[in-house]
Amino acid sequence: MKIVGKSVRKVDGIALATGQPVFTLDAVPPGAAVGKILRSPYAHAEIVRIDTSRAEELPGVLCILHHGNVPRIPYTTAGQGWPEPSPYDSFLFDRKVRFVGDRVAAVAAISEEIADEALRLIEVEYRELPAVLDPAEATAPGAPVIHDEEDARGIHDPEHNVAAAIDIRVGDIVRGFAESDVVVETTCVFPYVQHVPLEPHCVVAYLDEEDRLVIRSATQVPFHVRRIVARALGLPLSRIRVIKPRIGGGFGTKQEIVLEDVAAALALRVRKPVVMKYTRAEEFVAARTRHPMKVRVVLGAKKDGKIHAIEMDVLSNTGAYGTHSLTVLSNVGSKTLPLYNKAPHLWFHGKAVYTNLPVAGAYRGYGATQGYFALEVAVDELAEKLGMDPLELRLKNHIRAGETSPIFEKIGEGRAGKAQVVRSCALEECIREGARRIGWEEKRGKRIREGNWIHGVGMALSMQGSGITDIDMAAATVVMNEDGTFRLLVGATDLGTGSDTILAQIAAEALGVPVEAISVYSSDTDFTPFDTGAYASSTTYVSGGAVLRAAREVRRQILEVAAAILEEPPEELDLEGGHVVSRKSGKRVPLSEVGHRAMYVTDQRHIIATASFVAPESPPPFAAFFAEVAVDTETGVVRGGKFVAAADCGTPINPALAEGQLEGAIVQGIGHTLYEELRFSPRGRVRNPNLFDYRIPTAADVPDVEVVLIPSDEPTGPYGAKSIGEIGINGPAPAIANAIHDAIGVRLYRIPFTPERVLRAIRAKSSA
Amino acid sequence: MKIVGKSVRKVDGIALATGQPVFTLDAVPPGAAVGKILRSPYAHAEIVRIDTSRAEELPGVLCILHHGNVPRIPYTTAGQGWPEPSPYDSFLFDRKVRFVGDRVAAVAAISEEIADEALRLIEVEYRELPAVLDPAEATAPGAPVIHDEEDARGIHDPEHNVAAAIDIRVGDIVRGFAESDVVVETTCVFPYVQHVPLEPHCVVAYLDEEDRLVIRSATQVPFHVRRIVARALGLPLSRIRVIKPRIGGGFGTKQEIVLEDVAAALALRVRKPVVMKYTRAEEFVAARTRHPMKVRVVLGAKKDGKIHAIEMDVLSNTGAYGTHSLTVLSNVGSKTLPLYNKAPHLWFHGKAVYTNLPVAGAYRGYGATQGYFALEVAVDELAEKLGMDPLELRLKNHIRAGETSPIFEKIGEGRAGKAQVVRSCALEECIREGARRIGWEEKRGKRIREGNWIHGVGMALSMQGSGITDIDMAAATVVMNEDGTFRLLVGATDLGTGSDTILAQIAAEALGVPVEAISVYSSDTDFTPFDTGAYASSTTYVSGGAVLRAAREVRRQILEVAAAILEEPPEELDLEGGHVVSRKSGKRVPLSEVGHRAMYVTDQRHIIATASFVAPESPPPFAAFFAEVAVDTETGVVRGGKFVAAADCGTPINPALAEGQLEGAIVQGIGHTLYEELRFSPRGRVRNPNLFDYRIPTAADVPDVEVVLIPSDEPTGPYGAKSIGEIGINGPAPAIANAIHDAIGVRLYRIPFTPERVLRAIRAKSSA
Repeated sequence: MKIVGKSVRKVDGIALATGQPVFTLDAVPPGAAVGKILRSPYAHAEIVRIDTSRAEELPGVLCILHHGNVPRIPYTTAGQGWPEPSPYDSFLFDRKVRFVGDRVAAVAAISEEIADEALRLIEVEYRELPAVLDPAEATAPGAPVIHDEEDARGIHDPEHNVAAAIDIRVGDIVRGFAESDVVVETTCVFPYVQHVPLEPHCVVAYLDEEDRLVIRSATQVPFHVRRIVARALGLPLSRIRVIKPRIGGGFGTKQEIVLEDVAAALALRVRKPVVMKYTRAEEFVAARTRHPMKVRVVLGAKKDGKIHAIEMDVLSNTGAYGTHSLTVLSNVGSKTLPLYNKAPHLWFHGKAVYTNLPVAGAYRGYGATQGYFALEVAVDELAEKLGMDPLELRLKNHIRAGETSPIFEKIGEGRAGKAQVVRSCALEECIREGARRIGWEEKRGKRIREGNWIHGVGMALSMQGSGITDIDMAAATVVMNEDGTFRLLVGATDLGTGSDTILAQIAAEALGVPVEAISVYSSDTDFTPFDTGAYASSTTYVSGGAVLRAAREVRRQILEVAAAILEEPPEELDLEGGHVVSRKSGKRVPLSEVGHRAMYVTDQRHIIATASFVAPESPPPFAAFFAEVAVDTETGVVRGGKFVAAADCGTPINPALAEGQLEGAIVQGIGHTLYEELRFSPRGRVRNPNLFDYRIPTAADVPDVEVVLIPSDEPTGPYGAKSIGEIGINGPAPAIANAIHDAIGVRLYRIPFTPERVLRAIRAKSSA
Repeated sequence: MKIVGKSVRKVDGIALATGQPVFTLDAVPPGAAVGKILRSPYAHAEIVRIDTSRAEELPGVLCILHHGNVPRIPYTTAGQGWPEPSPYDSFLFDRKVRFVGDRVAAVAAISEEIADEALRLIEVEYRELPAVLDPAEATAPGAPVIHDEEDARGIHDPEHNVAAAIDIRVGDIVRGFAESDVVVETTCVFPYVQHVPLEPHCVVAYLDEEDRLVIRSATQVPFHVRRIVARALGLPLSRIRVIKPRIGGGFGTKQEIVLEDVAAALALRVRKPVVMKYTRAEEFVAARTRHPMKVRVVLGAKKDGKIHAIEMDVLSNTGAYGTHSLTVLSNVGSKTLPLYNKAPHLWFHGKAVYTNLPVAGAYRGYGATQGYFALEVAVDELAEKLGMDPLELRLKNHIRAGETSPIFEKIGEGRAGKAQVVRSCALEECIREGARRIGWEEKRGKRIREGNWIHGVGMALSMQGSGITDIDMAAATVVMNEDGTFRLLVGATDLGTGSDTILAQIAAEALGVPVEAISVYSSDTDFTPFDTGAYASSTTYVSGGAVLRAAREVRRQILEVAAAILEEPPEELDLEGGHVVSRKSGKRVPLSEVGHRAMYVTDQRHIIATASFVAPESPPPFAAFFAEVAVDTETGVVRGGKFVAAADCGTPINPALAEGQLEGAIVQGIGHTLYEELRFSPRGRVRNPNLFDYRIPTAADVPDVEVVLIPSDEPTGPYGAKSIGEIGINGPAPAIANAIHDAIGVRLYRIPFTPERVLRAIRAKSSA
């Protein structure tokens, strides 16, 4: 392969590096109004009265929207496939507020200052309602009901604050544990953490010359934004255009419609452009978070280490709204349990419950991260109890190519799953290579001391998916220009990952031209074909699949025209270096001649093809993670020494970009493992909605991260590719937890592993 | 039919009527530089020295381009199909200037005033060369050679100032005339006339975030602009984007690249946006004109009125550059001679010659207008000589459905033609209906007097084409949104004609939805598929053909999905009122359900189709024109009393728009017939480059124009449609000339029929 497998430069690299105006807020129309949101000071309250008269009298205030002057249409803010598996429990504005930070009203004004002042002048009388902040309490009898509205589709059970529930059984779990020689039980707790994208949510909405609504938004899901805003505002899709410029990071939070609906409603009302952007504080409070979870894992194994039974029990806190609640919950099991597919007895069950806290949603890893934290700590405990090397235990149990898991068939995302055989798996090589690089043999169990610092190593495995089987769909259009250059139009959403470059490489490989010959564009619902968007590690596999199909159809058309020129059958022809070349005779014709012939001379037509690709299965990438840490037994500080990840993402289309995804995810995982947690007051207010009090790792905090890609060949993927975007984030928490145990013999079940918690655990152990 | 045949509102009507910023100059980027062109004061000169140093020192001057600092790449400014039939005789800048107004240099500056001042500061030393202004003199031995450059393709013969030549023979013309009972010879002269679009040429060129060249231009041919600018500047097509906003009239002059090349070169050089616009004076001098021609027609006929032999001899003046010279010349015969297809002996010959005068190019009617002036005056003379009613003479000779003409096969546009049978023709009904409406029987030959005014009636016939056979190609993309609305992307160029509305109606009819359910966009080379552009009366027929194909393919995909929902075979299903309906069972499913199913549930794909259509033939529309005039024998003033046109454009997709085209063309034709003519000084300077001295008809000048559409069903056209854009302009000159003869017995062979010329002719006749 000439282009695939090369670390070519990002197609948008120069624009990004030279500061071109490529982001949403780089192109605010002159004279745009500023939109601002009034937020609830109560965790749970009814709005008894809202008086906007004083605010409306303020010069420069253009419009104030609230529940009293907009229709009450239920929808979900989750940008997911349709029919949406999330409850329709959100409204543009509602008569109730359900968390501190919930929307009360929105103002459009001629300046930010006036908008802020208007917010202060809106008089709201609340009747405070009892709030529930603890997910366990939320489902108890007599708990305050957070959602009393009906959901015609019956997805959630508002009466018991249950947004979603799951109960999947394979074999007989009771018998499974009874037949096991060793059983361990582990419960891990994942707190509220936030994505912290460099660019907060932002949007510009306006009416164009045709009076159509244009939404320029930093979104991962332009087509879902269009659909959801259409529902929320009662417009046909043909009247809405969503433009997705370059994005400064998403990680799942921009899979949510948190601003587009309000900005669009304001723009329609004031009939001029409206710009809205989250402050960093709003990003923490009123964007989305990872679902906080308590995950209990029970493992039963035979003496030889064969895992025989697994129970996984999840209590997920979806916060005040149920966006992504079912699918994230499902993923806790569906992306983890197939990894140890030899166990004949499985029980996966859980609930996602409403609380009066900020709203959880999609976040890189999407439930798998929470699941792996518990599962991989449990496996470490099992190895300890069996007296086995945890590496050997994992090698004995992990899934391999040609194998399947009943979980694939039992759990889909919002629908039934689908049987699937793993067709590519280099996990064993990943484990061995990672172990070699970290020095597993030499370091494990040695507890090397340097002063108060004790060293340890730990490991964890992970798999993920590549898009959502039978749900994620992408279409791509490849257009040949008559001079033999190409245009690639994709609805896919490059949110900074470099996916536009990946897609251009796939097209270039199929068309036998350099990447420079392809101008790629993503995405604009008016001009690029449909794509479910950038989530679920889907873009390379799903959008790439569509690009490859479209490019191959264009290739077929090119060869057809060239066959007439070269007077040879198309089967003998190949595309190479901007030419069509005959394998038989060596005769060649440049693509520019083919293009001109096709367009202008004989058999005239525009060589162009649109193809759709829907994930026929979701081939898992695999990774083995190894952490070396040092723990200061005096202070409880955990210092990362080295972190190794060896991953199988099939063919890495662009190794530098794949490595970048893996590294970035690991750093983000180290963040939640050691530093990050949203904290709340007893009345549900976020205590640390800023980057001083909510710490993410700085460059100085990041240990030596070493990533290695072990290729496999995924037969269903474009040029053998699978995904890499999410998997890296699943490794740090369990690998570091296990390394801490290797170092100091204590187990930590709750992240972040702050010095206080580590010290407390050390003391608890020594006092035991 | 539900949508086709209805005068629905223009899809861009509200935007245009409410003054939305839809035109090229409505969206000039802030801080854009202003580009201006320095023009030659000489008709023919060599540039000996050019000194830009003083101009460059002027603060605010950003860049000056001239022949000394740009590459000399030959190209044609004619936006036509490739390979272009026009000579490559133009350059961005050249060391020679060839007419008063030719490009010498271009300036980009921070303001218009500074740019103008810079032009004054450029010092140019010219060596004046002998100039030739008369086309007959241009080909004489020893005439100054205007183009000395080589044309590798051998299209023109620069040595003899011949840009193009044609010689087509059918039968034996000498025998033809010998066998005729009556022979008449008529020579008509067509002067320099200009299109005078409301919006002069204008363009904005800039580099986008990806450093790609964007050209926003009021062009009829966005894809040809891209190709020609790519050639002129040596860029691949993938680095250029051409956006065509709404256009304030084109009429052919915007089929020419007169500004885009310079603006793009300046933008590339200064690396900031450049805006350029023609003044009205530049529009007259340095845009394009209709080809001035002397057309000699010799007709031979049998006693019974059967036309037996036709010679047509053309001397066309292409001015300083040969853009469109061959194709306009070809069209003089190819669009006129088939009308009288019974004549077995034909000779069509002519030349287009270079002179040192402004550049002729494409202009509505495109040669046919000049041809019909001579042909239809000659037919009137023939009728006079035969003592026949000219209406009866025409009825006896004109082509009818099922018939052909050897001319179709002999003359193409720049290539060989193609045999073609006329499949639809309502010309006889047009003649009879037009005669009834003008009162032909009652008024002809009556010479009714009112004081000095004498009334007369005259008629003329015309046909035209619908695109260029085997050359004009369009592609269209129809995209289904999941809620059952649609997006129509066309490269076609609505230059104010309403073609976007026509195309939307065609799609709506095929898809069984109202026009409002379709959002239509034209055109942007980055996002809309290829289209040769708006010329040669092609859009309804060619682009419409592509839209219908694409819509039918989308319809097929819709029925496929609906068949599964309704459990009936697709053959039983129909699209109607936004639903798929079973003809058999009456079962129905809304398109929104079909769209959601297709996109998200089963058989997932984006329902979308791109189709290309190349004109398989060029079905002629037909028209009969009737003029009633009054001539003031004292002053020579000709006053139009009434003008009737009855036209067959196949199925009028939107009757109001078709009538508007016909009316507009007639008014434009009345303009050149009575008022318009560019006049020159002996040294080649335009004497009247303004709307005071170059008169176009005002509302007060326009007579009562009555148009009627007589439908026919063109089997190769979308829903039976042919074209209507050009044909109307061919009628006024001959019909009015013939009406003047009917009134006062004198024949005028040179337009415009100014009072001076009419008086002179009256005097010449009475002194004869």
